[in-house]
Amino acid sequence: MQLGMIGLGRMGANLVRRVMRAGHDCVVYDRDTAAVETLVSEGVAGAESIAELTSKLAAPRVVWVMVPAGVITHTVIAELADALDEGDIVIDGGNSYYRDGVRNAEQLAQQGIRLLDCGTSGGVWGLERGFSLMIGGDRSAYAAAEPIFAALAPGVQAAERTQGRDGEVAAAEKGYLHCGPSGAGHFVKMVHNGIEYGMMAAISEGLNILHRADIGVTEGVSGDAETAPMTHPEFYRYDLDLPAIAEVWRRGSVIGSWLVDLTAAALVESPDLSAFEGRVSDSGEGRWTAIAAIEEGVPAPVITAALSSRFTSRNLNEFADKAVSAMRKQFGGHDEKPGTGR
Amino acid sequence: MQLGMIGLGRMGANLVRRVMRAGHDCVVYDRDTAAVETLVSEGVAGAESIAELTSKLAAPRVVWVMVPAGVITHTVIAELADALDEGDIVIDGGNSYYRDGVRNAEQLAQQGIRLLDCGTSGGVWGLERGFSLMIGGDRSAYAAAEPIFAALAPGVQAAERTQGRDGEVAAAEKGYLHCGPSGAGHFVKMVHNGIEYGMMAAISEGLNILHRADIGVTEGVSGDAETAPMTHPEFYRYDLDLPAIAEVWRRGSVIGSWLVDLTAAALVESPDLSAFEGRVSDSGEGRWTAIAAIEEGVPAPVITAALSSRFTSRNLNEFADKAVSAMRKQFGGHDEKPGTGR
Amino acid sequence: MQLGMIGLGRMGANLVRRVMRAGHDCVVYDRDTAAVETLVSEGVAGAESIAELTSKLAAPRVVWVMVPAGVITHTVIAELADALDEGDIVIDGGNSYYRDGVRNAEQLAQQGIRLLDCGTSGGVWGLERGFSLMIGGDRSAYAAAEPIFAALAPGVQAAERTQGRDGEVAAAEKGYLHCGPSGAGHFVKMVHNGIEYGMMAAISEGLNILHRADIGVTEGVSGDAETAPMTHPEFYRYDLDLPAIAEVWRRGSVIGSWLVDLTAAALVESPDLSAFEGRVSDSGEGRWTAIAAIEEGVPAPVITAALSSRFTSRNLNEFADKAVSAMRKQFGGHDEKPGTGR
Amino acid sequence: MQLGMIGLGRMGANLVRRVMRAGHDCVVYDRDTAAVETLVSEGVAGAESIAELTSKLAAPRVVWVMVPAGVITHTVIAELADALDEGDIVIDGGNSYYRDGVRNAEQLAQQGIRLLDCGTSGGVWGLERGFSLMIGGDRSAYAAAEPIFAALAPGVQAAERTQGRDGEVAAAEKGYLHCGPSGAGHFVKMVHNGIEYGMMAAISEGLNILHRADIGVTEGVSGDAETAPMTHPEFYRYDLDLPAIAEVWRRGSVIGSWLVDLTAAALVESPDLSAFEGRVSDSGEGRWTAIAAIEEGVPAPVITAALSSRFTSRNLNEFADKAVSAMRKQFGGHDEKPGTGR
Repeated sequence: MQLGMIGLGRMGANLVRRVMRAGHDCVVYDRDTAAVETLVSEGVAGAESIAELTSKLAAPRVVWVMVPAGVITHTVIAELADALDEGDIVIDGGNSYYRDGVRNAEQLAQQGIRLLDCGTSGGVWGLERGFSLMIGGDRSAYAAAEPIFAALAPGVQAAERTQGRDGEVAAAEKGYLHCGPSGAGHFVKMVHNGIEYGMMAAISEGLNILHRADIGVTEGVSGDAETAPMTHPEFYRYDLDLPAIAEVWRRGSVIGSWLVDLTAAALVESPDLSAFEGRVSDSGEGRWTAIAAIEEGVPAPVITAALSSRFTSRNLNEFADKAVSAMRKQFGGHDEKPGTGR
Repeated sequence: MQLGMIGLGRMGANLVRRVMRAGHDCVVYDRDTAAVETLVSEGVAGAESIAELTSKLAAPRVVWVMVPAGVITHTVIAELADALDEGDIVIDGGNSYYRDGVRNAEQLAQQGIRLLDCGTSGGVWGLERGFSLMIGGDRSAYAAAEPIFAALAPGVQAAERTQGRDGEVAAAEKGYLHCGPSGAGHFVKMVHNGIEYGMMAAISEGLNILHRADIGVTEGVSGDAETAPMTHPEFYRYDLDLPAIAEVWRRGSVIGSWLVDLTAAALVESPDLSAFEGRVSDSGEGRWTAIAAIEEGVPAPVITAALSSRFTSRNLNEFADKAVSAMRKQFGGHDEKPGTGR
Repeated sequence: MQLGMIGLGRMGANLVRRVMRAGHDCVVYDRDTAAVETLVSEGVAGAESIAELTSKLAAPRVVWVMVPAGVITHTVIAELADALDEGDIVIDGGNSYYRDGVRNAEQLAQQGIRLLDCGTSGGVWGLERGFSLMIGGDRSAYAAAEPIFAALAPGVQAAERTQGRDGEVAAAEKGYLHCGPSGAGHFVKMVHNGIEYGMMAAISEGLNILHRADIGVTEGVSGDAETAPMTHPEFYRYDLDLPAIAEVWRRGSVIGSWLVDLTAAALVESPDLSAFEGRVSDSGEGRWTAIAAIEEGVPAPVITAALSSRFTSRNLNEFADKAVSAMRKQFGGHDEKPGTGR
Repeated sequence: MQLGMIGLGRMGANLVRRVMRAGHDCVVYDRDTAAVETLVSEGVAGAESIAELTSKLAAPRVVWVMVPAGVITHTVIAELADALDEGDIVIDGGNSYYRDGVRNAEQLAQQGIRLLDCGTSGGVWGLERGFSLMIGGDRSAYAAAEPIFAALAPGVQAAERTQGRDGEVAAAEKGYLHCGPSGAGHFVKMVHNGIEYGMMAAISEGLNILHRADIGVTEGVSGDAETAPMTHPEFYRYDLDLPAIAEVWRRGSVIGSWLVDLTAAALVESPDLSAFEGRVSDSGEGRWTAIAAIEEGVPAPVITAALSSRFTSRNLNEFADKAVSAMRKQFGGHDEKPGTGR
């Protein structure tokens, strides 16, 4: 079948390539003409505008929008809607807030256009590994676009079947799922990313504990009125090989995971991770997951702690820390100990 | 080569089986004679006492101890030491506190016996998948016992090689690693389990958020002076299929992991997890990881939150919750709202 | 001056009494006629409807609304607006979401009515101690109503002046503050309550640690494969007198606070807090504070953890805990240990 | 009665002054002779050595040790013990680990010397306000030293009596308490400081949320693939006066506390807290409280989060943050966004 793709960034371009490899046709558009040209050179049909893109697709059209969430997605979908007809299908595959999807779907429905929200996981590796797709919206639209989802997903052979599942292979086992009505796809993807935040933080905290397992040697026992003396320096004398440890966790261990695989790769590249400063971005889903937990009354201490850690990595804790120091100065006359800068 | 095994529980018996399959010989002992008989019926040599076990092994002996951590491990190792000779090797493969390993190793060293501490991950699946082994202690003892570790580990073929690793396959790539001197193996395994706590909590919190994604329908908007009214019931109307969602995360997603695989299997068995009450045990490593983080000064908010959640699952928060209610009663005259029991 | 009061619950009735004591006149209304009659018997003018209440007030009227936040506040303010004239002032003194205040203020402004949002802290003790008032909205309306705020606030004599403050006494030193435009009062009160959640949780966790300081005696050292053995039972042999400890913290200690005062009172009443089940309500501000922190990108690990603990106290962690148990069963064959119920 | 004091730092010198003011005699010693001279100039008897100090005290002697916890306390107490006789009393008033107190008490008991552990709260303000004293150890020694404790404590008049307490005034109401056997005093003080960590963090997080309440104006809505766009900039337009807000919370509010008093004072001095960098020390008790919670199995998410925040304020999260960035780079090709340095 035919797919239109708007947005040819890291993710969008690879989605197109994987769809093409499965034998479907694509027409692509991006504001950045170089991005279009790259794909054209790979045999994909290009367009110089959204209108041209839609004109090259046969009705009912299926157009995937893969642009940054928020205002940009909203604007692109609005412009796209003007160029579409009743019965066409738009897929928002970006990291949109699921609530925007609900609102956008209602608006497009007034024109008879069906919006599917599709949470897309897999990152830059999706071209090879396939993408995990969490889809919400009108079921008939989902059914119409299913060949595209099937082409993008990893397929059942990507992992052993789960014990207890046999017989016909369900879509979820192939790597895509219609999760429910509008917003359900992005909702599930949002929670997926919340889990991701927690898992990444857990691994990273663990690595930091290993990283400092030698402080009984490097820092000694000295304490003063401002600092706790080390209670047991004799138990912190390990100089550990982190790249090897991440590697050993990849096979047979309970924490075996793609994130550990990637960590192992990162540590091979740079055992001390010196290529990074440690300023961790957050692109919305972690925040939204935490907010959903709060509004549902669900305790999510791990996911919210992981989110706080990202804020902290960008120094957003600074004023609070100053306030704690100020209180200590007030009640105890404690001056801050000089450090090597925050 | 020959291996003695003391302790034939879930883990110990499977360790023996995997070592046997690799062509080594085993002599086994357990207080529970039925456990010994089971393995004898599978062709393994049994012993009725620790002394008999050691008498059946040629020097230098290698004896693996796989019994509950703490007092039992300590007692068994002490008894075993009496039956060993200089040059023999003891492997503590249980979930011992790494500090006990350091102390035990020093004691055994006085008799010329070398203690290896071996953190063993893989659970009941290790027989099929292989075990991930994190080893500490004397390097010559490690070298002598390496064929056993190689037999137990999954082997390099269990996963694709990490990008950036080529040439000769390192032990870590096969699934076992000499991490450092005494205690290093259990230290690394301890942190592994701390990470495991965090990952499990992250997945579980996410599932709970999905589980309650329908409360806009089921609970409505009503609030009162004691309870927050729902701000956005319209955004919580999803009745989600958790077994299918866990399944779709198994292939291609960023959170793909063995724990997600197992979650998917558990949800196929029981979509509402009604077979469980939710009282989560903790067997020590999570506590020790949190304590290590504290003593090193490493922030570990996610891992410690996951640990707190385990305590809370067993109702150990009760007195604190009563105190909060008591304060609310004092300042606001708030009575507790009746519930369906804690 | 004259004040109308709508809503005569625990807070509203005491606000009226304190305003009366300061020599102002009040007209009161509540759906519950008994509540009106109580105050009438104390010499306050009553009304049988909102319309009657407004008819008894001279323009420009000042009417305080003290009803449950959310739909009820919204409805009452809408009905009240119909009975008011241009130039009148409405004060929303409840625990409204500050965003509702912004919206309500805009709506009332179209009729020339000015809405002040007033966060009111002090609980059932406010009649005696005075209330702490955080006010947002039109500055001229604030100025017009200031005598009421001054009557309700504790006054500067309630505490020693802060070091560095001298000269004329600022309103904040008397216990009330115009914080900014619409919503600012409820915003500041919201954060106040977020801090309150954190402080209450800190005190309660500490009490729980003291409460269980005897487990080296009561639980012993026994551990098994499911449970961590106690590492240092000899250090947990204290049978502590919690009422006395809370009392000793009231004078001279760094944590001296009204919340500790109230805790001491609660523990005198019931040293084991057996009057409480420990199901802690949350009435919105904690949630909103956490959401504000997230939207601002401010790390608030303590406040969000305190919020999660409230959810957990109401068993909302149950599904997540079941999921953790289910994973443990899957990978380790661990059965849940029976307990005395969740 | 007579008191010997070893250690004349911020705390020790003020303890001496307060004891003197109550009419008792003191003999003081410090390695720093200037510190001794200062007190001698105020009329206190000085000593040039521990031996001289003990020689100036009549038996049974009471000597208070107020030096940094850990090795120094241990060394001083050992030297002191050599200069004391059976029946004498040593008070360790510093922030010692309660376990050291247990061990030290056992050792001194062999010489017939009784060690009291005394947790001392009040900071630099104790001279004026009195100190809150939490005491452990031999009850007869406590009884013998009680006049000193009574002199140091604030006295019952420092706060209204707790509702429900009448009749004879208990020691706890005066501000000192015999909490139990050896270590109990420092244990209770340790938990007190754990609570203090939580309360300070709660206040500071709240201030930070207020501090950034204007980011809807200052940062705008822009987001990109790396950063979440602001969902509701219109709700974050408050430019709040933090010194005034802290002040208004001092009277009548639920969070009224000495820490809020001190925060108000600090903000008067420096509304933007620019005198501080935000590197917060931790002197042991927070760590030990967290460890006690873990060993008891008590969930303490708030106190442990507050502790993690202190570590983070000193950049000890850096390696973990780098690891998160490294994973994001691996799976998503995300580069770190440049910042203004960590």
